[in-house]
Amino acid sequence: MTAPSRTDQPHKIQPPRGTRDLYPAEAARRRWLTERWREVSVRHGFEEVDGPTFEASDLYAVKSGDGILGELFQAFSGKSPDEVEQVKDTGRAPYALRPEFTPTLARMYAAKAAGLPKPCKWFMAGPFFRAERPQRGRLREFLQWNCDVLGLDIPTEKWNAEDAESRAEVAEAKARMDAECIACCVADLESLGLAPSDVSIHFGSRDVVTNMLNEMEIPESRHTQILNLLDRQSKLAPKDFAAECDRLGFHMHRFQVLQGICIDAMKQGFPWIGLNSDEHAVTFDFKSMALLATEIEKLGITAWCKPDLSIARGLAYYTGTVFEVIADGERAVAGGGRYDNLIELFGGPKTPAVGFAMGDVVLSLLLQDKGLMPSGDELMGLVGQHPDVFVLSNGDEAAEARVRPTVAALRRGGESLAGLHVRHSYKATKNVGKLLKEAAQQGARFAVIIEDAESCSVKDTRTNEQWPDKVPLTDLHARLAGAM
Amino acid sequence: MTAPSRTDQPHKIQPPRGTRDLYPAEAARRRWLTERWREVSVRHGFEEVDGPTFEASDLYAVKSGDGILGELFQAFSGKSPDEVEQVKDTGRAPYALRPEFTPTLARMYAAKAAGLPKPCKWFMAGPFFRAERPQRGRLREFLQWNCDVLGLDIPTEKWNAEDAESRAEVAEAKARMDAECIACCVADLESLGLAPSDVSIHFGSRDVVTNMLNEMEIPESRHTQILNLLDRQSKLAPKDFAAECDRLGFHMHRFQVLQGICIDAMKQGFPWIGLNSDEHAVTFDFKSMALLATEIEKLGITAWCKPDLSIARGLAYYTGTVFEVIADGERAVAGGGRYDNLIELFGGPKTPAVGFAMGDVVLSLLLQDKGLMPSGDELMGLVGQHPDVFVLSNGDEAAEARVRPTVAALRRGGESLAGLHVRHSYKATKNVGKLLKEAAQQGARFAVIIEDAESCSVKDTRTNEQWPDKVPLTDLHARLAGAM
Repeated sequence: MTAPSRTDQPHKIQPPRGTRDLYPAEAARRRWLTERWREVSVRHGFEEVDGPTFEASDLYAVKSGDGILGELFQAFSGKSPDEVEQVKDTGRAPYALRPEFTPTLARMYAAKAAGLPKPCKWFMAGPFFRAERPQRGRLREFLQWNCDVLGLDIPTEKWNAEDAESRAEVAEAKARMDAECIACCVADLESLGLAPSDVSIHFGSRDVVTNMLNEMEIPESRHTQILNLLDRQSKLAPKDFAAECDRLGFHMHRFQVLQGICIDAMKQGFPWIGLNSDEHAVTFDFKSMALLATEIEKLGITAWCKPDLSIARGLAYYTGTVFEVIADGERAVAGGGRYDNLIELFGGPKTPAVGFAMGDVVLSLLLQDKGLMPSGDELMGLVGQHPDVFVLSNGDEAAEARVRPTVAALRRGGESLAGLHVRHSYKATKNVGKLLKEAAQQGARFAVIIEDAESCSVKDTRTNEQWPDKVPLTDLHARLAGAM
Repeated sequence: MTAPSRTDQPHKIQPPRGTRDLYPAEAARRRWLTERWREVSVRHGFEEVDGPTFEASDLYAVKSGDGILGELFQAFSGKSPDEVEQVKDTGRAPYALRPEFTPTLARMYAAKAAGLPKPCKWFMAGPFFRAERPQRGRLREFLQWNCDVLGLDIPTEKWNAEDAESRAEVAEAKARMDAECIACCVADLESLGLAPSDVSIHFGSRDVVTNMLNEMEIPESRHTQILNLLDRQSKLAPKDFAAECDRLGFHMHRFQVLQGICIDAMKQGFPWIGLNSDEHAVTFDFKSMALLATEIEKLGITAWCKPDLSIARGLAYYTGTVFEVIADGERAVAGGGRYDNLIELFGGPKTPAVGFAMGDVVLSLLLQDKGLMPSGDELMGLVGQHPDVFVLSNGDEAAEARVRPTVAALRRGGESLAGLHVRHSYKATKNVGKLLKEAAQQGARFAVIIEDAESCSVKDTRTNEQWPDKVPLTDLHARLAGAM
């Protein structure tokens, strides 16, 4: 086989590996998913924001060092000789396609913190990019939904106060904000048709785990490694996991016993007040988790949530509550947590913050596996793509000549009449039966049959009945609008 | 001033030049615009599609040569040693951020042409990127709406047939498809509040101009340069434009006379049949423009459209009809045309196609200048972000404890009740008057005042009247749903 030459052969260029072409059915599924995300966010009081699709590479290197750039798509302006030179010299580009939203969010919040509401509840849904090897559940371009609550619902001067009373108020406020995020996430899962038997929110706490590690007398220098190990546990063979535990002096068995004590306590009807004075509770200081569990109960989503201290989250910036949406006990559908130090790192005031992100790829696989991903006619209905009206003629020449002008007039609307979604056949057939069948296939609400240059009959496809009278074309739009 | 060091100072990283941070007000404006685009597309029978945000650089080089890469943002995987090496060696990356949709569309259509409807009507709206110097009306990341009609509404075997009868049928079908695109574009302008006094669709034809150039005995080798010159006319000083005309042997005055003959003929009530046998019409073969004008008339949008043969469009791939939406006689808001050879270039069957693209940047400036860009409360209403319900308590402790659980329950819905958009105050105040004011400021449809642990009163903010009876909290959702 010879390579096709650029001049002689047509060019069959493929989409980049790990990206998707969205034909109408796939685009409708994307719209359905992202509309669910948006609708749920709005109804939970989040406001939509967005940032650039690419950011300065430094924005990601701040948090994670230059090493992170090896995981990203990097970008440069082909027009800038300086940027091209930099890339040729160093192999490092000035921009990166965003792999996550949190750095952009932190930058945006930091830039305008003083003028923003407290708390500030933001969401966004859009494309993100990772230079990973594409595989099932992982693509190089994917969609992600982000919801974040920045700040607390108590006065700012208390957010970082050190007195015991303020600290208690802060802990409760954080639990409220954490629970609001989790409730929004749950509402989305529920609106997609999932149930607690399909997915659970596993919530843990970096603080509590750190306290346990201290209790186990593990030196602080190894804490990050152990958190990362816990995060990777499901991806490791049990033997390799055990070997790593040994190497780090981490006694998984003892950790599980300590976790058991916490979780047993939490299951006993949330008797927090008592527990906080209990020996174990005080030792592990798992008050933050207890407060969160109480809030989860208040918001009516306890059935969806499971305390799980092995949730560690790979990202270094989490500080307290961490959670993951886990399907069928293994697949992570979403994850998030509290990142109280990040806004400050980006030049803003120290601001407690919590948020989560959900990608579309694992979620879509899950919905497909559960038979919950809509398709075909049902999907088109869900995304509002069924026509209001399908226009045809009885085949009479004067009537046929009115089809396209009538379609155009109904689509445009005007005055007090909204434009309608109107279709007509692009086929050559003038057979009324076939055309009515096409109208039905497209899911049109009404079929309009033009009878002559001035009038038409209307068929309601829901009742399958024809209106008793002929309708003058000049009245058609108003009559249809009245009937919808 | 010393540069901030990476470890000691917080990082004030700016968004990349020529990109935008969308805070809630800007994001709502984007949503309003893109929802208008989508709604108009759907109601005109276009189906949504999308492709990857970045494509193989070759996809753009096919049409325009490697030179185009100097106008684009180029991208590579930081994880692939091969790609990093390639960039270091050549300064050319394997991917580019998409600067326009047409190549992706052509690639997608070519890949599945046989199974797609004929004609195939696709739209998309999303981010695009150009490595231009940012200035008023031009950004490096912007949104663009694309609508395309691929194929014709006559049997495929006729699309490229050479007999006179087929050619006549094809010409008419192309005019129908061209007009459908233009009508969809007009409907969007109209739905944004613009009028024919603000914007016009200037339509011309590459074919007709080519015929005129032949009539003027200008060698074919110079036609492309002259089309490009016409395209740039508004950006050149009259003196420079005249000099370029001289250099290319192009007599602008004669061109204008010929154009005048065409346009005068078109203004005389579109007497096409007669005109086609007229000496001038035959000479210039402006039948395609005449057919398009007839279709424009049929679709009722003549008031928005102006024949204008100086519309040339810079892109090399246009073959017949070309059009631009021009505001106040100068600003180009959108543009498009017929590209009958492009699908074949991407490996598909030869397929007549027409489409247009509209960006958000010039459009937004225009809407702002005309006072048509919604803002504040009006905007939030237009994008459906007014809360359905605002929940507060009378300050009683048992009532106050029910605020968050009630909010959560109304947001979640369940059974036959859809979740509602519900908010509550994050402020410390328990003053009912102040809280009701906050409810009004947020544009809530109902204010719910919880009176005790079990019941509430409801105020309709539209009528400013309180419901006569107290409502049990258990009935609240159903009662609110019934009243909306």
